[in-house]
Amino acid sequence: MSEVHGQERAAGSEKGRPTMRDALVEAAFRLFSERGFEQTTVDDIVSLAGVGRRSFFRYFPSKEAVVFPDHDGCLADMTAFLAEADPAGDPVEQVCDAARLVLRMYAANPAFSVGRYRLTKQVPNLRIHELSVVWRYERTLAGHLRSRYAARADGGLRADVIAAAVVAAHNYALRSWLRSGGEGDVGAAVDEALQLVVDTWGNGAAGSGSGSADEEVVVMVARRGTPMWRVVQGVEAALEG
Amino acid sequence: MSEVHGQERAAGSEKGRPTMRDALVEAAFRLFSERGFEQTTVDDIVSLAGVGRRSFFRYFPSKEAVVFPDHDGCLADMTAFLAEADPAGDPVEQVCDAARLVLRMYAANPAFSVGRYRLTKQVPNLRIHELSVVWRYERTLAGHLRSRYAARADGGLRADVIAAAVVAAHNYALRSWLRSGGEGDVGAAVDEALQLVVDTWGNGAAGSGSGSADEEVVVMVARRGTPMWRVVQGVEAALEG
Repeated sequence: MSEVHGQERAAGSEKGRPTMRDALVEAAFRLFSERGFEQTTVDDIVSLAGVGRRSFFRYFPSKEAVVFPDHDGCLADMTAFLAEADPAGDPVEQVCDAARLVLRMYAANPAFSVGRYRLTKQVPNLRIHELSVVWRYERTLAGHLRSRYAARADGGLRADVIAAAVVAAHNYALRSWLRSGGEGDVGAAVDEALQLVVDTWGNGAAGSGSGSADEEVVVMVARRGTPMWRVVQGVEAALEG
Repeated sequence: MSEVHGQERAAGSEKGRPTMRDALVEAAFRLFSERGFEQTTVDDIVSLAGVGRRSFFRYFPSKEAVVFPDHDGCLADMTAFLAEADPAGDPVEQVCDAARLVLRMYAANPAFSVGRYRLTKQVPNLRIHELSVVWRYERTLAGHLRSRYAARADGGLRADVIAAAVVAAHNYALRSWLRSGGEGDVGAAVDEALQLVVDTWGNGAAGSGSGSADEEVVVMVARRGTPMWRVVQGVEAALEG
């Protein structure tokens, strides 16, 4: 797992010298909580941060974007992480690990994450902006799976379905945690949720269609009550096949 | 499968007397193709359609919304279809059938659907609007699955993951068709894509966790090369268990 630079960026204004970007985020969130998101303008934010309007738009394309300041960095980390992933590894495990980078960013700053979740729920424009953020993560994961499944006839379909499943499982656990106000071990909850995807699609899963020749297994399915001689016959036929 | 009212709505301006809503959609698309989406204002649209500005906003909350005029109707059809679904049926098959309602709406008017797809690809705001449309379908499917999986400890997670998988599979096939300019049998392509989800999660799938007691099966997994006596031992142990 690569270093999670997003965490440092998220906590930058607390740990080190605040950058202009940090100052803009801080000013924006102070105003959002005081006046509400809709009632705050970009002019209000730059005025409180003591910078010019152009500086704002150098860092953020819109007022919505300042609410999700760390996603660009996290997406870059995810892309780098997947680019370095072991070509012999399980691609489903790899995209699950990549999704955990997003989780760590949220978990690094629970109060900020919970506050943002509540804000996002109240403002339709932010919800829509968040969907586009999630979509970019999903496409990044799908891109990795597509390249690994390039030899499969159903590779593109499988990649899209698994990427969507990973994002849904990750967000299921993350949102439960955010809804609870940041109570409990979100890392364990996300691990449990992602395990469903790994069990279903990973290299060890029945439906993965993977497995190298020297690990070949025989799976014999029989109804309870099947006579033993028929079970043996079935296994023998499979072993010969 | 319920009647697909969305189809009639989609083709309303061709089949019956055009409504004011139809006239607005037609005017909007004529202007979008002539001038581009960004260069067209709501004032331009109402002026060409010969109606007032208020009438536009009675039907559509934004200029983006007029690009997807049939999704509200389709979402209502989907909700009604799922509300009437057989409680004893396979919920995964049911949400796949519900997703096919969206497909039919697209397939009912290929030229319109392909034109809209090309427009949407060019305009970031439309792509974001489309994400929110897709999200509403996904939540509707997830809601149905949640109610059917209410007795399962992992019901909420499973519902979200399967709903995301259905949407991803549907959109994989739909987008391939739209990219091709509407060539080939999109119904068959979507059926094939959704089959992956049914095979993985449906009542007949290994991972579904369903199956009544009198259909109980024994699954025996052994590496190739396992001696037959050990296979028999394993099956016997399972049958006794």
